[in-house]
Amino acid sequence: MARYKAVLEYDGTDFFGFQRQAEERTVQGEVEAALSRIGWAGTTILGAGRTDTGVHAAGQVIAFDLEWGHEPDDLLRALNANLPVDAAVKNLAPCSPDFHPRYQARGRHYRYTIYNWPARSPLAARYAWQVWPALNLNTLREASVLLLGRHDFAAFGSDPDQGVNTVRTVSRAEWRQGGEWFYFDIQAEAFLYRMVRSLVGALKKVGLGEWTFGEFAALLHSRDRAKGPPIAPAHGLCLVEIIY
Amino acid sequence: MARYKAVLEYDGTDFFGFQRQAEERTVQGEVEAALSRIGWAGTTILGAGRTDTGVHAAGQVIAFDLEWGHEPDDLLRALNANLPVDAAVKNLAPCSPDFHPRYQARGRHYRYTIYNWPARSPLAARYAWQVWPALNLNTLREASVLLLGRHDFAAFGSDPDQGVNTVRTVSRAEWRQGGEWFYFDIQAEAFLYRMVRSLVGALKKVGLGEWTFGEFAALLHSRDRAKGPPIAPAHGLCLVEIIY
Repeated sequence: MARYKAVLEYDGTDFFGFQRQAEERTVQGEVEAALSRIGWAGTTILGAGRTDTGVHAAGQVIAFDLEWGHEPDDLLRALNANLPVDAAVKNLAPCSPDFHPRYQARGRHYRYTIYNWPARSPLAARYAWQVWPALNLNTLREASVLLLGRHDFAAFGSDPDQGVNTVRTVSRAEWRQGGEWFYFDIQAEAFLYRMVRSLVGALKKVGLGEWTFGEFAALLHSRDRAKGPPIAPAHGLCLVEIIY
Repeated sequence: MARYKAVLEYDGTDFFGFQRQAEERTVQGEVEAALSRIGWAGTTILGAGRTDTGVHAAGQVIAFDLEWGHEPDDLLRALNANLPVDAAVKNLAPCSPDFHPRYQARGRHYRYTIYNWPARSPLAARYAWQVWPALNLNTLREASVLLLGRHDFAAFGSDPDQGVNTVRTVSRAEWRQGGEWFYFDIQAEAFLYRMVRSLVGALKKVGLGEWTFGEFAALLHSRDRAKGPPIAPAHGLCLVEIIY
């Protein structure tokens, strides 16, 4: 028996999020079903982050214990042959038997993609939020600098473990623009529930000029979720990487 | 009555190509249906290129005549509200009444995307051809230089008008690599039927080391379609731009 660490990519469109649910199609459920078909006798895999319904991942990390008599590359192929078309293991390797993808993660990197154009993009419809009128990159950047460091982000989400700790440390909050595409890269040791989408919902208002820098700062400092704007849709969000 | 030029984007996955067919779902069929719902009484729109089943477009160009009492922006919105989720007009403007998107095109720019990795990419599955083992960027580039200029490309396709003219002029044939992604940008005044996918099918063999530069050159000079390799799949191909 050995423990394996695997990096998972999935298109979140047709999943009810990562975490297993009895009646719904989830990423965890599909991975466990695929593992069972190749001889896994475990009851649960470990995952680094519980992505919501519709959220994508290019770098979700999981771990599981398996008796496997062949090479890790064969295991990767066998798993992918048993996974549905919208989920796949990108790479896989044996790891320490006490590796835990969630508790040992030092950081999470998410990317939110906005398509800033007056018409829909059929090629990006599954992966980007269409926003119009034009966003201002400078005001997006100015407001995002406020997020860096250690803050109480209660205005932008709740403790995912139903606790009361809403302080988080953000180490990266960067906007890039390429033509009509805007990318928001944000990294933290951990996030509140729906924090990235709440931040993007608020920052979009800043980028459109509907909110001033001061109003955004006031919301952050209010620590009041009720004052927040509508959260950005799930399909623009992707879990890019878990940092160890 | 005025003529409008529109740039069309579509996800080719669920279309039987661009050109209208009586029994199949096509891009032209959907656009004509959308136009009819907003008062168009024409019988056919004009298109710049007839993309195959499964081929995508970010920059297909169409033209149509329409009596429209409002602004072009309202027409764009009305059309997109009537088009299915996998097709949309990106921009639209009135044009000269004798504008023809096909006959006046001076060039076509296609991009073929390869995902060079040992596992599937669920996020790119609709838009990239997964190829493994590793491709060699240098040999891909060396072979592609042979395509530049005026050549008889009979080994890589047939005349789309069932004629015998298989001479075409290629003005760009460039490979770029970004991590596990390879992009092949090719531009010509016009292409033979399935020419880009035939070229990519052959170049992939060169990039994998299965064919030498000399073998690729010999195939080009043979002008014999029967000697060609399997064509690359449709879903990696995208019509990027029509040049006027």
